[in-house]
Amino acid sequence: MSILIKNILLNNERTDVYIEKNSFTQIEKNIEKEADTVIDGSHRAILPSFHNLHTHSSMTLMRGYADDMALHTWLNDYIWPFEAKLKDVDIYNGARLACVEMIKSGTTMCADMYVGTEQVVKAFSEMGIRAFVGATFFDFFDEKKAEEMKKKMEAEYEANKEVDEKIAIMPAPHAVYTVSEESLRWLAEFSEKNNTLVNIHLSETQKENDDCVAKYGVRPVELLDRVGLLNERLLVAHAVHLNDDEIALLAERGVIVAHCPASNMKLASGGFRYDAMAKAGVKFSIATDGVCSDNNVDMMGEMKLAALRAKEMYADATVAPAADVFARATSLPAEYLGLNTGKIEVGAKADFILVNLDDVAMVPNTNLISNMVYSATPKVIDYTVCDGKILMAEGVVEGEKEIIAALRDSMQRLGA
Amino acid sequence: MSILIKNILLNNERTDVYIEKNSFTQIEKNIEKEADTVIDGSHRAILPSFHNLHTHSSMTLMRGYADDMALHTWLNDYIWPFEAKLKDVDIYNGARLACVEMIKSGTTMCADMYVGTEQVVKAFSEMGIRAFVGATFFDFFDEKKAEEMKKKMEAEYEANKEVDEKIAIMPAPHAVYTVSEESLRWLAEFSEKNNTLVNIHLSETQKENDDCVAKYGVRPVELLDRVGLLNERLLVAHAVHLNDDEIALLAERGVIVAHCPASNMKLASGGFRYDAMAKAGVKFSIATDGVCSDNNVDMMGEMKLAALRAKEMYADATVAPAADVFARATSLPAEYLGLNTGKIEVGAKADFILVNLDDVAMVPNTNLISNMVYSATPKVIDYTVCDGKILMAEGVVEGEKEIIAALRDSMQRLGA
Repeated sequence: MSILIKNILLNNERTDVYIEKNSFTQIEKNIEKEADTVIDGSHRAILPSFHNLHTHSSMTLMRGYADDMALHTWLNDYIWPFEAKLKDVDIYNGARLACVEMIKSGTTMCADMYVGTEQVVKAFSEMGIRAFVGATFFDFFDEKKAEEMKKKMEAEYEANKEVDEKIAIMPAPHAVYTVSEESLRWLAEFSEKNNTLVNIHLSETQKENDDCVAKYGVRPVELLDRVGLLNERLLVAHAVHLNDDEIALLAERGVIVAHCPASNMKLASGGFRYDAMAKAGVKFSIATDGVCSDNNVDMMGEMKLAALRAKEMYADATVAPAADVFARATSLPAEYLGLNTGKIEVGAKADFILVNLDDVAMVPNTNLISNMVYSATPKVIDYTVCDGKILMAEGVVEGEKEIIAALRDSMQRLGA
Repeated sequence: MSILIKNILLNNERTDVYIEKNSFTQIEKNIEKEADTVIDGSHRAILPSFHNLHTHSSMTLMRGYADDMALHTWLNDYIWPFEAKLKDVDIYNGARLACVEMIKSGTTMCADMYVGTEQVVKAFSEMGIRAFVGATFFDFFDEKKAEEMKKKMEAEYEANKEVDEKIAIMPAPHAVYTVSEESLRWLAEFSEKNNTLVNIHLSETQKENDDCVAKYGVRPVELLDRVGLLNERLLVAHAVHLNDDEIALLAERGVIVAHCPASNMKLASGGFRYDAMAKAGVKFSIATDGVCSDNNVDMMGEMKLAALRAKEMYADATVAPAADVFARATSLPAEYLGLNTGKIEVGAKADFILVNLDDVAMVPNTNLISNMVYSATPKVIDYTVCDGKILMAEGVVEGEKEIIAALRDSMQRLGA
């Protein structure tokens, strides 16, 4: 497979771009070479695709199901009861719909956290995206349940780790209030032994911190440290209620943070300390969370929210400038995860988007990155390519209609 | 002109909708009648179109021109110098581009505030939208300038008030820090005599309040009261820094407020008191502001921001529920302004949108309004209709390419 993009805007200049197999092989003007696919770039720009480091893909099933509620009501009275009814096919259908939505909004990589690992891996693999799939671990402090989960985790890891070379499996202890200290310790060892990421929700709410102190005498960050999880293999979501020492510690240990502004705002969880995190050198990226708390997986909307929320919170319009925000949705998360993506250069993997500069929201093109962060919506994206494979061409994702129909079948069966 | 929409979703039921001239004339199942245009509604829903009560349309020219800056730097060092270079044709081109963007994102009515009234009216009239066009008034406390502006205002009002029955002209004193008390008083009399709205930026920043107290000994709301402007003909933008007494007074006097969350956040102006305003019964709506501080005129993005920002500010996820937010972007602003729009019912003017329920962001359709507020982006809108006239059909706005080309010509001439 080869792709030749003619006369595309890259870093304010027009060039040709050649992709062979899964990588950029040539970037220069006037490439005269045959290709399986030739794309006219003359009214378009090429940009790295989005990397979304926290989502729960299958939760597309619950879009619009439980809005405008307090977090613990939402989780206990709506989400968990609904989830108890899910079958494998529903998880698969939900994940596929999320893929369509991600691809249509320019995302080619996500870190997912959900149950039904096999279904999620199958969906992602079929849809062609890159992913870290979190096999969620809950034990609710029950020893017997913990032993079952450990076995399940090991089996899921073994069964799925080599299904697709673009997809890695990571243990995903849900949070310190749903997983015992002993299990967290076991997961830290699992991660070290197998060299996997570990994914957890961290300090999302003040209540989480308070409950942790009441139970353990320490805050969640310290608890994760004492079980051996606080290292460069840890990917945490939210990290809202952190003090200065905790921020410094996360930076020092190289912990990766997924900042989810829409979710934090919608669930009134609290304010992510964007500027403090950036200044401390924490490796943080911007992510959507699941559609039950966002309610889409559009990284452009999320970038705008991240920038605006940070400016508002610090009462400083110069905080979270567009270029920083854009990097935290594209190149930086790729770099944090050691992926050779998030950049348009020879030798890098060909994960990218082509945006339509004739879309009204992109006119005038005074500042492309500013337009992407503050003005763009999914309709500006014409092509989404992952690993050299075209996942969306001229706005169309293959199989979209069938995937939507299957999701509706799931909803009907679930009685929702 | 007549339109028949077959089998469309309205209030959770399928129906047919008939439009004759500029109004809904029949809404019931199985309408068997000829029509100039027949639209298949079977995968769509009909909803009232958006009413955007604060924007500066021509500022599409400045999209991405001055981001991530403090408000007063932004205004003094970037916006005003750029604006000094604008010619009539630029204002016209900017306003037309805004119309394309509004129509593509489902907005059929705006309250605009800018210079070059004649150009803005011409653009809006050609594009077919409904509007209150604010003729901006600045005098910078200079008596001679004030006299010139009064003459200009009267002339602009007379020349434009009857150009298009969908377009009204309103005097638009920029703010209390750019217009003298004497001129504000004159504008209050003008508004009473001619029964026009008056449009002003109010208490957008703490600095505005502080400066007003230093100059006049009173805060902006009290100043507007003493010049006779605080009544149901006043439309104010922002209204961020208000105390409880001022909120109660705005409610009592029937002042209309345009809440612009993106602008307030991006310029770090402060936090609009959504819940306090709602509880006090203030007539407030949701608006985008100009694209130099937003940076698009997408009311769906704005609704999401309004809801999320309010929840975050009050640390309460139940504040600003989707249905309330949606009403404040559609039916309520229409009602505040005495327009017979913002509703899908026989006798109302036919201002509406058709949304594509097969768009991935609208699946599943568990809660249509929640999807519109939290998940939808412009690409879900297939048709936009204003006053019975189809402004966008199947995603296409007539003349769009020429309008974009003209905007680019303006940018080139402006050296930007």
